[in-house]
Amino acid sequence: MKAIVNVSLKAGVLDSQGKAVKHALDSLKFGSVKDVRVGKQIVLELDSKDAASAKEEVAQMCEALLANTVIEEYTIEIIS
Amino acid sequence: MKAIVNVSLKAGVLDSQGKAVKHALDSLKFGSVKDVRVGKQIVLELDSKDAASAKEEVAQMCEALLANTVIEEYTIEIIS
Repeated sequence: MKAIVNVSLKAGVLDSQGKAVKHALDSLKFGSVKDVRVGKQIVLELDSKDAASAKEEVAQMCEALLANTVIEEYTIEIIS
Repeated sequence: MKAIVNVSLKAGVLDSQGKAVKHALDSLKFGSVKDVRVGKQIVLELDSKDAASAKEEVAQMCEALLANTVIEEYTIEIIS
């Protein structure tokens, strides 16, 4: 079973990496770009018995390690 | 128009960040985790006239800046 976790900065939190990418894209003449946000995508290979328990366990991993919930939010997608 | 770019290491390329996360999850007693791969998710806000031209432009951005195509692969999703 596979879990895809997307971790991104909460709206309103300054994304300095995103700003740097936006600036670099401007320098490369990609003028259509209005905003850039950079986050993490974590792909986990799991040995869980069902999707519900996998999602519950991955949520615990996010709270404990994968995301800093003060400034970041996360989404979990389970692919069997 | 919004574009979501997922950049991940190609299969076979050593993912040291993923290995570190796997090790940390083991330490936290999440024993069901078999493998971890860590990538980037870049969300772009675009001012393009249609989805096809947006996807074409984002592919150029990936080749020029967002991904190191020697070791990384990318997927592009356009959300209007």
